[in-house]
Amino acid sequence: MSAIPNVLAERYASKAIVNIWSAEGRIVLEREFWIAVMKAQKELGLDIPQEAIDSYESVKDQVNLPAIMERERITRHDVKARIEEFCDLSGHQHIHKGMTSRDLTENVEQLQVYRSLLILRDKTIATLSKINERAQQWQGLLITARTHNVAAQPTTFGKRLAMFGEELLGGLSSLNHLIETYAVRGLKGAVGTQMDQISLFEGDIEKVDALESKICTHLGIPEVFDNVGQVYPRSLDFRTVSVLTDLASGPSSFSRTLRLMAGNETASEGFAKGQTGSSAMPHKMNSRSCERVNGFQTILKGYLVMATGLAGDQWNEGDVSCSVVRRVMLPDAFYACDGMFETFLTILNQMNAYPAVIDAENEHYLPFLMTTTIMMEAVKAGVGRETAHKVIKEHAVATVDALRAREVTKNDLLGRLATDERIPLTIEQLEALLEEGRSNAGSARSQVAAFNKTVSAWTSKFPNAASYERLNPLIFLLKNLQMA
Amino acid sequence: MSAIPNVLAERYASKAIVNIWSAEGRIVLEREFWIAVMKAQKELGLDIPQEAIDSYESVKDQVNLPAIMERERITRHDVKARIEEFCDLSGHQHIHKGMTSRDLTENVEQLQVYRSLLILRDKTIATLSKINERAQQWQGLLITARTHNVAAQPTTFGKRLAMFGEELLGGLSSLNHLIETYAVRGLKGAVGTQMDQISLFEGDIEKVDALESKICTHLGIPEVFDNVGQVYPRSLDFRTVSVLTDLASGPSSFSRTLRLMAGNETASEGFAKGQTGSSAMPHKMNSRSCERVNGFQTILKGYLVMATGLAGDQWNEGDVSCSVVRRVMLPDAFYACDGMFETFLTILNQMNAYPAVIDAENEHYLPFLMTTTIMMEAVKAGVGRETAHKVIKEHAVATVDALRAREVTKNDLLGRLATDERIPLTIEQLEALLEEGRSNAGSARSQVAAFNKTVSAWTSKFPNAASYERLNPLIFLLKNLQMA
Amino acid sequence: MSAIPNVLAERYASKAIVNIWSAEGRIVLEREFWIAVMKAQKELGLDIPQEAIDSYESVKDQVNLPAIMERERITRHDVKARIEEFCDLSGHQHIHKGMTSRDLTENVEQLQVYRSLLILRDKTIATLSKINERAQQWQGLLITARTHNVAAQPTTFGKRLAMFGEELLGGLSSLNHLIETYAVRGLKGAVGTQMDQISLFEGDIEKVDALESKICTHLGIPEVFDNVGQVYPRSLDFRTVSVLTDLASGPSSFSRTLRLMAGNETASEGFAKGQTGSSAMPHKMNSRSCERVNGFQTILKGYLVMATGLAGDQWNEGDVSCSVVRRVMLPDAFYACDGMFETFLTILNQMNAYPAVIDAENEHYLPFLMTTTIMMEAVKAGVGRETAHKVIKEHAVATVDALRAREVTKNDLLGRLATDERIPLTIEQLEALLEEGRSNAGSARSQVAAFNKTVSAWTSKFPNAASYERLNPLIFLLKNLQMA
Amino acid sequence: MSAIPNVLAERYASKAIVNIWSAEGRIVLEREFWIAVMKAQKELGLDIPQEAIDSYESVKDQVNLPAIMERERITRHDVKARIEEFCDLSGHQHIHKGMTSRDLTENVEQLQVYRSLLILRDKTIATLSKINERAQQWQGLLITARTHNVAAQPTTFGKRLAMFGEELLGGLSSLNHLIETYAVRGLKGAVGTQMDQISLFEGDIEKVDALESKICTHLGIPEVFDNVGQVYPRSLDFRTVSVLTDLASGPSSFSRTLRLMAGNETASEGFAKGQTGSSAMPHKMNSRSCERVNGFQTILKGYLVMATGLAGDQWNEGDVSCSVVRRVMLPDAFYACDGMFETFLTILNQMNAYPAVIDAENEHYLPFLMTTTIMMEAVKAGVGRETAHKVIKEHAVATVDALRAREVTKNDLLGRLATDERIPLTIEQLEALLEEGRSNAGSARSQVAAFNKTVSAWTSKFPNAASYERLNPLIFLLKNLQMA
Repeated sequence: MSAIPNVLAERYASKAIVNIWSAEGRIVLEREFWIAVMKAQKELGLDIPQEAIDSYESVKDQVNLPAIMERERITRHDVKARIEEFCDLSGHQHIHKGMTSRDLTENVEQLQVYRSLLILRDKTIATLSKINERAQQWQGLLITARTHNVAAQPTTFGKRLAMFGEELLGGLSSLNHLIETYAVRGLKGAVGTQMDQISLFEGDIEKVDALESKICTHLGIPEVFDNVGQVYPRSLDFRTVSVLTDLASGPSSFSRTLRLMAGNETASEGFAKGQTGSSAMPHKMNSRSCERVNGFQTILKGYLVMATGLAGDQWNEGDVSCSVVRRVMLPDAFYACDGMFETFLTILNQMNAYPAVIDAENEHYLPFLMTTTIMMEAVKAGVGRETAHKVIKEHAVATVDALRAREVTKNDLLGRLATDERIPLTIEQLEALLEEGRSNAGSARSQVAAFNKTVSAWTSKFPNAASYERLNPLIFLLKNLQMA
Repeated sequence: MSAIPNVLAERYASKAIVNIWSAEGRIVLEREFWIAVMKAQKELGLDIPQEAIDSYESVKDQVNLPAIMERERITRHDVKARIEEFCDLSGHQHIHKGMTSRDLTENVEQLQVYRSLLILRDKTIATLSKINERAQQWQGLLITARTHNVAAQPTTFGKRLAMFGEELLGGLSSLNHLIETYAVRGLKGAVGTQMDQISLFEGDIEKVDALESKICTHLGIPEVFDNVGQVYPRSLDFRTVSVLTDLASGPSSFSRTLRLMAGNETASEGFAKGQTGSSAMPHKMNSRSCERVNGFQTILKGYLVMATGLAGDQWNEGDVSCSVVRRVMLPDAFYACDGMFETFLTILNQMNAYPAVIDAENEHYLPFLMTTTIMMEAVKAGVGRETAHKVIKEHAVATVDALRAREVTKNDLLGRLATDERIPLTIEQLEALLEEGRSNAGSARSQVAAFNKTVSAWTSKFPNAASYERLNPLIFLLKNLQMA
Repeated sequence: MSAIPNVLAERYASKAIVNIWSAEGRIVLEREFWIAVMKAQKELGLDIPQEAIDSYESVKDQVNLPAIMERERITRHDVKARIEEFCDLSGHQHIHKGMTSRDLTENVEQLQVYRSLLILRDKTIATLSKINERAQQWQGLLITARTHNVAAQPTTFGKRLAMFGEELLGGLSSLNHLIETYAVRGLKGAVGTQMDQISLFEGDIEKVDALESKICTHLGIPEVFDNVGQVYPRSLDFRTVSVLTDLASGPSSFSRTLRLMAGNETASEGFAKGQTGSSAMPHKMNSRSCERVNGFQTILKGYLVMATGLAGDQWNEGDVSCSVVRRVMLPDAFYACDGMFETFLTILNQMNAYPAVIDAENEHYLPFLMTTTIMMEAVKAGVGRETAHKVIKEHAVATVDALRAREVTKNDLLGRLATDERIPLTIEQLEALLEEGRSNAGSARSQVAAFNKTVSAWTSKFPNAASYERLNPLIFLLKNLQMA
Repeated sequence: MSAIPNVLAERYASKAIVNIWSAEGRIVLEREFWIAVMKAQKELGLDIPQEAIDSYESVKDQVNLPAIMERERITRHDVKARIEEFCDLSGHQHIHKGMTSRDLTENVEQLQVYRSLLILRDKTIATLSKINERAQQWQGLLITARTHNVAAQPTTFGKRLAMFGEELLGGLSSLNHLIETYAVRGLKGAVGTQMDQISLFEGDIEKVDALESKICTHLGIPEVFDNVGQVYPRSLDFRTVSVLTDLASGPSSFSRTLRLMAGNETASEGFAKGQTGSSAMPHKMNSRSCERVNGFQTILKGYLVMATGLAGDQWNEGDVSCSVVRRVMLPDAFYACDGMFETFLTILNQMNAYPAVIDAENEHYLPFLMTTTIMMEAVKAGVGRETAHKVIKEHAVATVDALRAREVTKNDLLGRLATDERIPLTIEQLEALLEEGRSNAGSARSQVAAFNKTVSAWTSKFPNAASYERLNPLIFLLKNLQMA
């Protein structure tokens, strides 16, 4: 039997994220961390030969997983196995001085998290850039806005896109705050007091502080915790997965809405060239990618609950009841969030709107959408407000009923109102109001412009991020060959 | 870069569960299902040559994953790829007649779930059998029961074990009910109306009913749904993961309690021969397996939330927003639950109690634990209830304070009471009460006997299950070589 | 400022459930429990005067909450305050003998849970009965089934209802199993060993057993735990809230589907006489009750997570980290589930289907829904399968495109096929196939009949339950006056 | 039957939070909002008499809930009922011009959220200030740090407090970011396009912008959304409840640790003067407040799941499937978080440490905690590293076993090592190492100083917050009279 693969990594996540969390990737990160510690220890006066450091550096990319696994079988200790392997490869014994396992693993895992967050920030900005492009494209395409899934008032498709884009901007703000304030545990020893490093430097706490500073510079993580125990606080993991869940909200709401639009054939997620829907039913163009985006959000909510299970559950200076949970939750949450973005970018790239169907829907509902305006005009023409409301309601409900019974196939509310003496408006006047309504979506246009401005500020600040999409099709070529 | 493995499958779950959910395992299940459908269709009159069926049967175990993946790349449809591969292997074109993809995948996935449930039932009974063994072993070992983590009254270690065992019995009852009422979707077609099978049998609904019955017999699943859509109701998956979470509750509570006992050194999860705790601190014998059991329950709670995300979210006859979720949640929840049981069985096999430390704790607290009894005797001896309570409280609090200040090192409450004139009991009388208390754990013994009886009923009903533990060490030899 | 009311109890839950969980209701249950214990203790030989018991009984309904609160302020102990109040009312001091607080509170809270479950079983059966009524009413109403929210094959509206009804049947089975196996904690004392009751009966364990049996008879709960600590296992609460969440799944899926249908105007949840939708937009008939049902399920999922937070988290013989959680979660989960059923019954009572709109939808999609059949006929007429598939796909996609561009307003797939030489079927033959399709929903009818049979078995077993709906409108008159 | 109260509001939350969410409080907020809109509309040119505004202002605090409820019974629309009541009280008809219900309710609910967040920021800072006070008090109190709940190395109690305090600092950073970036929906109309306000101002979008700016100034909320639909994105609610859950993590971890310490009698949460623990067992001083803090976090995790149920589930421009959920989740999450802080502040005010018990524990474990140091000295003295490790391990394990068997009552590891020839250290040398270890907690002291500095920066920035604690006892006098 072959190994059971991680489904999220194999099918959905991009290579960049998968590399960070792969066994090999992690081992290289660990080795780089050990080398950074050695270099800093040497600079601060420990007797570590340069030749040893050079030797470690020269072999750091030689990762032999089966050999390490074999060592683990004998030592029964994972970190010890990896120490021995690296030392034997280099022919030296200078790594891990004054360190406990957690001094290695916590920092390296945080580095994996931090680098993954950086990738997701780029990808969020790339997504916003694409949403913005679509919002600009369709800023003037008038659609029938729905509340309670029922026709309400006109809006534009561009504004609808910007609306969900603005939700994603909220997630980006949280993500960015997390990145800017992310703190690493540092070299704190078995219970957080740095006792062993202090011993190593014969009581010189300042040197230990300097060592930690150098290490943080190596990691490139902005902050370092002052007071920790064996582990950094697990609410930081909670905060991380919470941000991932947050990021999925805007895309998820939009995907759900696009599934609704596909049901009415006003828009669709589109298809790759040559792709058809169901093999048995060739007309079926299923919103599978949208459904998948919603699925990813459900998955993230599950990992978030795993993260909440760890936050606030620390005993004393720490235990490892979090160990197996983090081993599953952290990489898998990143794979899921990344897969969500990859899928969502495909949707944004391929989606279609169907203006003819949209127009037909608008025409069907427009007289209803204008009733507020008609009422105001009737009042201006001298009718009492209560009377106007009563009459319009009477005819509107009758029109709904007639349409639902297919007694009429076209919305004839205006005709009904024109022939009711209580409303002193002619059919011409009423149709003029309707005509105006056909192109009136209030401040939709200026709102879409505001969205453009906000997104542009982000893409200016992170210019590489916005170009992400261009690389995207290649990844999808590989990923999309597999089915939902 | 090597493939990213599924951590739960690779490190924690047993081979039996992993096999069911492996890619190869699933493909064989699918092929068996297709063959069963063909056989039944032939029996009911469809023109399918016996030679074709024989040919399919002869190649069903030839699973070539890369070849199937290659076909999927071309067809862009996973089920189609697997149909073509199987047909080409056999040299025939008779499988999947009148079936949609879901007719295959839903039933086979349910079979994976159902068989996994059967394994877990056995494992639950094996665990109960082992808990019972330990409960009998320590049925008379008096310990200081704690509520609010503070000494309360005497109990026995056997009863404490039986208490958590009884929690697991509740989970077993739910699991067994799920197994006994588990319903499979059956051959229902694209939207649940069986239209294509009915076409195939030229409108003969009775034949389609007969076909479905035969298929259910093949699957060995007790019930079949009448009314489904494209999919079976996802609340069945919710119910399944809910039962898995339930099963983890008793073991999780006991593991948490054993972590507490290890902190007081009254008991420990034990260690394999030759194993030590921390490499730097050789005295440390960490409750890593107990912590892991708690970790597994946290994981299950996350998968449960994924399952709740699907229940009640069906649109019309079904969509695939559940697809990616189930692909992750179902196997991973089973791996986690199975890994939990494997870990917990190790704990039960290796755990230790430390009677000398237990006795010291009992002696330290016993006078406090007897205050209710002392008060009753004082009242019998003529003291007013309120007075007795006041005096005992006064001395008890003073004793607590003195012990905490280490002004005394032995609990001298009895001495204090004996010299207080308001309590007309001599030191001999008081010590006699204490002596009685040393061996009095109320109905603990009979409760443990009742637990034995209940567990025995289950092991009699499922005799193979109880013997599971004997195979266990071998599995652990492989699994335990990896660290938490 | 007035007191903050419990929103779920005040606005949504029925009086029957609210009464069980009200402060007064609970106090009466407690007093009845104390009286039952006294009576049993007296029968088993304790010296408790009959007059005392009579006196307690005569005052048990005199519940003065402010007086009890005042006592609690002084004693700082809730159970003690309630003991004193009851004793002062009766003029006796015989309740609570040999009992700890948890002997009272655990059993009474379980009684609240158990009685609430019985009410929900009735309500579930009433709901099934109503679903069944609607399923029979619309068993022949052909609708376009949708998968991925896209037209797929024909089904009937009755079958769609039965499909979601069958999901609810699964929840009912779980609920019924929970009720039939529900176990009460019993009189187990401070740590579960019954030490104080055994003292009271001077070591006679059999008498204590007999006492417990009598108490369980009083409670009317089927089972009693053997081995518990201070508390019963919290996984029982988890199981309870899990069942409530399960019960909401079928109604929630149906409500979501009805919201989708309302968006297409094929059906609606209906409205009370005189009710209109939005005040500003009189045509709007919003699916507010359906949305609310979905909201209740979301709420239940939150309470379920609270319940999972307690399961598996017991320390030793118990602590009260569960206390504040259960105080919120248990009543509120029952209110939410009950409110969900009340809302859903209103929907079932008032909902409408719009056959004219449904027919129009069927006509629009029918040629697509028949492509499988057309292909089979083409093959019979001598066309190669691959060719037939290719041609049909070609025309189907073109028809979809033409319809979406409004180049055609009627589905003209058959005309396109008839004029394509590669398909040797005439327009008459094709239209005959379509005509057949108009009334063919496969086994929908027999499935609805099967649903009827299953539901009838439940209503026969619980005849009072099915009549619940008749009382319903009165409750709604009060409840529905408040807005979502 | 009296009304069912909201347990969290009634028993646990402070008056400040409860007022914000009370029915009366909300109605006043709504009226203030309407007045602010009127004033702004007047300033921008709408014809609204000053007298009308004055009149509304004069009656805004006259809240008659039963009268409003009665109106709701008749109109069947909650907002309409509140409009009519306010208008009748004032004798004018000028409020709610160009507004939809959501223009009122979304903004007012966000104001409730925002003001609650401000209160919680103060309370968080007050809590940090108190943690800091305790950390300084016990900065030098050496305790035995535990990992895996087992003795590991020395630390100080002050550092342990600062460690959990630093976790809370992380939550505060998230809270502060949320407050500083919190965006209000604004006056956006039925689907977000401001159509009705634009109509009211005869197409002048700039005036509508100016109106919205004025309104935001009135609300005092820093940001306003550009693109929304009927509602603001529900991921903002998710972010809010996520922060509340985050805030509970540090307090929850510390409370759990204090429950563990209470079990070893090294510390306790303390008790109010005159308070005793269990009535039957007067020595019992239960960590009920700590347990309650843990309970509150479990509750918050449930509300967080309700919030995740809304995020990413928006259909089109919005629906009200979120309505009943937000009605429960938002106030209740704030009550729970606030009650958590109130309880936790009591713990911080009343907690005790027991230095004599702590010292005894230190003495018991200290030789084990020094093994790393001993090994290093042995190596300096010429022993091979592997030999030193082997010998120390041998004796350490033997000592553990002897202590657990009570063969020795004092940790005699040093004696064993001194008499082993393989370790060339005398008993005097070994005891000197131990003596050094008695006061060596590494960088604990400087870490606690760093914590002090960080907390002081916050208290300087929010000077009122830190003084919160002084008001606290009064609130607790009322709250704590009720039992868990």
